[in-house]
Amino acid sequence: MGVEIERKFLVAGDGWRACVTSVWSMRQGYLSTNAKATVRIRIVDDAKAILTLKGPTSGISRAEFEYEVPIEEGRALLEIARPDVVEKSRHIVPYRGLEWEVDVFDGAHAGLIIAEVELSSPDQAIDMPEWAGQEVSQDDRYANASLSRQPGVPQPPTSG
Amino acid sequence: MGVEIERKFLVAGDGWRACVTSVWSMRQGYLSTNAKATVRIRIVDDAKAILTLKGPTSGISRAEFEYEVPIEEGRALLEIARPDVVEKSRHIVPYRGLEWEVDVFDGAHAGLIIAEVELSSPDQAIDMPEWAGQEVSQDDRYANASLSRQPGVPQPPTSG
Repeated sequence: MGVEIERKFLVAGDGWRACVTSVWSMRQGYLSTNAKATVRIRIVDDAKAILTLKGPTSGISRAEFEYEVPIEEGRALLEIARPDVVEKSRHIVPYRGLEWEVDVFDGAHAGLIIAEVELSSPDQAIDMPEWAGQEVSQDDRYANASLSRQPGVPQPPTSG
Repeated sequence: MGVEIERKFLVAGDGWRACVTSVWSMRQGYLSTNAKATVRIRIVDDAKAILTLKGPTSGISRAEFEYEVPIEEGRALLEIARPDVVEKSRHIVPYRGLEWEVDVFDGAHAGLIIAEVELSSPDQAIDMPEWAGQEVSQDDRYANASLSRQPGVPQPPTSG
């Protein structure tokens, strides 16, 4: 069990691509997205399956429980989760002491790119990369669970 | 992953008590009970935690995935599941080659006793014990997930 504290930004430009240290392909499906818990099965590089339960969100924090499960069981759970599935490639991009994850969505959400950074505390200062655009940490439409239920790319929020 | 095939009966009388080979206390909570999947955390004898996902029901069969998780994480998941919790003691009762589970409910469902038997195929013949009463295999009110959302003991179905 851990607490997930993360901030999430739209991505402006390709500046991050030069700094990518690794890339994984991810297919992930949602078995539950109710008020109590999000239950997600994620298949990484078609080789590893991770079952994740997340508790209710409080601000940008939530309890998180992760369990690796046998790959065949992961694939069966992904089938049960359909059609609520998201496909993306995750790019790891270090930037001034923090490890950013730049998710390039595919399939029903092609065209969407989101950068996430995991923090140790909600008020931790971040050196913002120039390619990090508008913050969408608390815009539920950009939650992967929401995306899984809705094809297409959300209209960016109006700034202000 | 396995397939759970089980039949479920109300219990008439105390005839089963003489044949109990073991007893476990169980507290179990439901994180999701939607159409796709039931997600349950079960704490056995306050010592062992098992996370179970069950796929959609087809007749008396459904896919089942079970993972033991660290006990502290199990307790935290049980808190997230509240108030949808069931407490019971499970009695293992062998009867003519099959292992029956007689669940004596406690807490909000005190007074309810249900006997379950797991089968290898839906049409497997069963030697019925004299203490097995009305069958409730497909009466959703007796599903533990349903009970967790509804205190009290369901009115037995009218026979016929």
